[in-house]
Amino acid sequence: MTVSALADHIATVGLIDQHAHGCWVTAGDRRRFENRLNEANTEPLAAFDSGFDSQLGFAVRARCAPLLGLPRHVDPERYWQRRSQSDEAEVARTFLGAAGVTDWLVDTGLDEVADVATMRALSGDRAHEVVRLEQVAEQAAAAPGDYAAAFEDILQRRAATAVATKSILAYRAGFAGDLSAPSAAQVSRAAARWRDNGGVRVCDPVLLRFGLHCALRLGKPLQLHVGFGDRDADLRTANPLYLREFLQQAGDTPIVLLHCYPYEREAGYLAQAFNHVYVDGGLTITHLGARAPAFIARLVELAPFRKIVYSSDGYGPAELHYLGAALWRTGLHRVLQGFVEDGEWSEADAIRVVDLIARGTAARIYRI
Amino acid sequence: MTVSALADHIATVGLIDQHAHGCWVTAGDRRRFENRLNEANTEPLAAFDSGFDSQLGFAVRARCAPLLGLPRHVDPERYWQRRSQSDEAEVARTFLGAAGVTDWLVDTGLDEVADVATMRALSGDRAHEVVRLEQVAEQAAAAPGDYAAAFEDILQRRAATAVATKSILAYRAGFAGDLSAPSAAQVSRAAARWRDNGGVRVCDPVLLRFGLHCALRLGKPLQLHVGFGDRDADLRTANPLYLREFLQQAGDTPIVLLHCYPYEREAGYLAQAFNHVYVDGGLTITHLGARAPAFIARLVELAPFRKIVYSSDGYGPAELHYLGAALWRTGLHRVLQGFVEDGEWSEADAIRVVDLIARGTAARIYRI
Amino acid sequence: MTVSALADHIATVGLIDQHAHGCWVTAGDRRRFENRLNEANTEPLAAFDSGFDSQLGFAVRARCAPLLGLPRHVDPERYWQRRSQSDEAEVARTFLGAAGVTDWLVDTGLDEVADVATMRALSGDRAHEVVRLEQVAEQAAAAPGDYAAAFEDILQRRAATAVATKSILAYRAGFAGDLSAPSAAQVSRAAARWRDNGGVRVCDPVLLRFGLHCALRLGKPLQLHVGFGDRDADLRTANPLYLREFLQQAGDTPIVLLHCYPYEREAGYLAQAFNHVYVDGGLTITHLGARAPAFIARLVELAPFRKIVYSSDGYGPAELHYLGAALWRTGLHRVLQGFVEDGEWSEADAIRVVDLIARGTAARIYRI
Repeated sequence: MTVSALADHIATVGLIDQHAHGCWVTAGDRRRFENRLNEANTEPLAAFDSGFDSQLGFAVRARCAPLLGLPRHVDPERYWQRRSQSDEAEVARTFLGAAGVTDWLVDTGLDEVADVATMRALSGDRAHEVVRLEQVAEQAAAAPGDYAAAFEDILQRRAATAVATKSILAYRAGFAGDLSAPSAAQVSRAAARWRDNGGVRVCDPVLLRFGLHCALRLGKPLQLHVGFGDRDADLRTANPLYLREFLQQAGDTPIVLLHCYPYEREAGYLAQAFNHVYVDGGLTITHLGARAPAFIARLVELAPFRKIVYSSDGYGPAELHYLGAALWRTGLHRVLQGFVEDGEWSEADAIRVVDLIARGTAARIYRI
Repeated sequence: MTVSALADHIATVGLIDQHAHGCWVTAGDRRRFENRLNEANTEPLAAFDSGFDSQLGFAVRARCAPLLGLPRHVDPERYWQRRSQSDEAEVARTFLGAAGVTDWLVDTGLDEVADVATMRALSGDRAHEVVRLEQVAEQAAAAPGDYAAAFEDILQRRAATAVATKSILAYRAGFAGDLSAPSAAQVSRAAARWRDNGGVRVCDPVLLRFGLHCALRLGKPLQLHVGFGDRDADLRTANPLYLREFLQQAGDTPIVLLHCYPYEREAGYLAQAFNHVYVDGGLTITHLGARAPAFIARLVELAPFRKIVYSSDGYGPAELHYLGAALWRTGLHRVLQGFVEDGEWSEADAIRVVDLIARGTAARIYRI
Repeated sequence: MTVSALADHIATVGLIDQHAHGCWVTAGDRRRFENRLNEANTEPLAAFDSGFDSQLGFAVRARCAPLLGLPRHVDPERYWQRRSQSDEAEVARTFLGAAGVTDWLVDTGLDEVADVATMRALSGDRAHEVVRLEQVAEQAAAAPGDYAAAFEDILQRRAATAVATKSILAYRAGFAGDLSAPSAAQVSRAAARWRDNGGVRVCDPVLLRFGLHCALRLGKPLQLHVGFGDRDADLRTANPLYLREFLQQAGDTPIVLLHCYPYEREAGYLAQAFNHVYVDGGLTITHLGARAPAFIARLVELAPFRKIVYSSDGYGPAELHYLGAALWRTGLHRVLQGFVEDGEWSEADAIRVVDLIARGTAARIYRI
């Protein structure tokens, strides 16, 4: 084997994208597009700003432009013009197809994007559902009768055809408080209060904790949003080290820490500390663009190599589903080739680790 | 364009140093000099130590020595001997002139150094005032009558000819508490208490918060010390993620996060999350010396490229005003050239981003 | 001098390993070995996992295999087979001897491994004791009479032939609370309570603080576990920035922050901020394997060059005692050679800094 064997392998390995959302299926304007190039801001970009003037924006121009028949680094105007000539489904087929993904795990908790079947159709790949617990909570609030029973019932039913659950606790209450299982009486009281207030957007820590512990009992992997996301979350209390006690109580159910920036080293430590904890770079890789290799390098520090998985967290423009994969391939190649050239890793080991991260571990824990 | 076009551009672009203090104008001994090469320690260096045995000390010998006609890496003794042969003003002219700065924004809150006019005269460049809010508070404490009215009046008057305000809240109370606007009654009571105690060194959170909210209403950019500085600040509560609620309340006034180490990634996230937040490497770049490129690379991760500015935070020896610029040029070139060589950025984009960081964004927000 | 002078020097300099534990002296099975390749987990590795599939596991195969006459990157089966053909003492002699260490500072607070005399015999080097304060506490609990007097007496007696003390406060209470010296009455009450409960595993913050302040008065360097270790410690409150007030009270006694991941930049800041604070990469370097250079680079950011020391924290398999040294040599060479090639450091300075970290500073503070 030569170093190019590693390069060839990373370039072609079929990925399990273990956490994504649907791509857009309806047309939108340039404003919508540019705002989606900024993850953290919850308001429209300021007039002086442009979503293109960021690492992600530069990555779109460098890496997505050629798939639309444009030169690398094409200016934003031409990129947008060409993209607008296709309908959103055609754009999605182009970028989903180019990602080299075999299986999409789709968190269906967000609206106005492709559902699992549409992701399947647009990509030509397999697609599986990830059930968002906070959505189950809202469904249970709207159901008649006992909240806890309704939650368990809906979760059981939906999870029967799903591969995992997902929680956005980081957005709703943060990790800094008590995360133990609440009593039935606590759940009942909290649910009554919430239903009286309309039962939308669950933020009550008791109900969030109840959902988490139901998911643990279910036994399918539980994905947790960690770190970087939009500013509705307090990034300070989205530090996964706050999860220590919860992880100690979590039994054997695999728990996957998503995104993790700037706590990827803390997350890697947890993946070493707990047999059932996994780590994923998620949307961080997409948003770091040219800086993705430095982040990927930190993902392969303390985390055991059988505890790291891949996802794009793509949501909206299918460029994101593609860039996650493309930047992961380039970045991981850069990092692992360096280890091989330094003599610290063999190339055969590097190829084996690529397979573990690309799909082996995800196939094991999600049973796909 | 070739890669050297980028190198040439970074080497020559005129900088807006958007946060500095005056340089020394009076002679001092070697002890004073070596102590200023250590930022964090508030006590004299131990007898076993030397300010020269640090990244900054090595940078002085590598980069400043040639400007004094000495060989690169000259030993500390010869450096100090040669430096002592010139008076402080002559040293200042040498290093300020070599920085390639067109505009110095001078925080005038520190004594025993050059004022704005002297910075202008020594450098031959433009210089503008940044008003330190905690100094305004002390002036208001010493003024007759109502504290709040005096504060507002002094701030209005001083800010009329200034380009920005600055707060050292990180040093006085940290970011971990309530940062909302206090009521008039709270300010009145806190001011009375503080005046009774002598009115020096404002540390009362109520008065610090009052100053911040006055500055927000003023509308000129507000600079905040964040992260690395001397140990009078608790580095733990100088984490900018504690500012989340304050930033949500801050309206449109630009807020510039200075220095930021080791929270530069958190600061970059905030610059993406809030339209009015900006990030600056400040004195970190100077103190990291040979390690500055790694830090600069992290500054261009999540922060949008129109939200990053340059400063030296130079204070005391004019070597610091020069090294900030010199290390920024080398480090940013290293980082951006890497992106260009990887094919992730075009060289034209790299040059445009250099201009944004060097002066474009600062010119926009400070209106200079 | 050429760049190879630096390489030669780093490859051969005799190290003071300023914090290690004994190596194994009795035979064990592969399960024991693989579990020791994972530091953070306190439970047996899961059936799907292997201690070899980690940066440390790869480092064992890359770097230790040749010392057993095996090819670099040999597969785990053959590595284990060959290792099992020797008894543990023979393995220890091989790896301790290859580390290039002149002095081992041995924390004797862990059982079932070599004691100081055995480390001396196996390595053929000098070995010195580091007294673990929590072990002294347990000895004092078991002694008759007043606890405080017993503690002080045992500490004085044991420290007479030791070079330092060590605390694992991070494991027992974390750094987030009050760390001031307790009163005699507080100590007396806490000791009575603890003795009533059996006097094993001291976790009472009062008694832990009492031990720390006794150690400060003793004047010999105090080593503190910081950051990365096993999950019995809460990594979140093992952040050394919580130590600020304690360090302000600590007088002149050298305090050495061990391991520090992921807080090595915070620890470097403290080493700059306090004349008596030192920083060490410890077991982090061993566990990061191919990623060790990136970590070592961050250790030489803010920490003054006379405030950085070396240790392996080896414990159990003597591979760890060897890998600490081997990875430190390679990593530090990579980092410093980069500085020299960039023109930021002279090679002579780089060699001098190597000597300071390798042994100069440790020799000074431990008086060996």
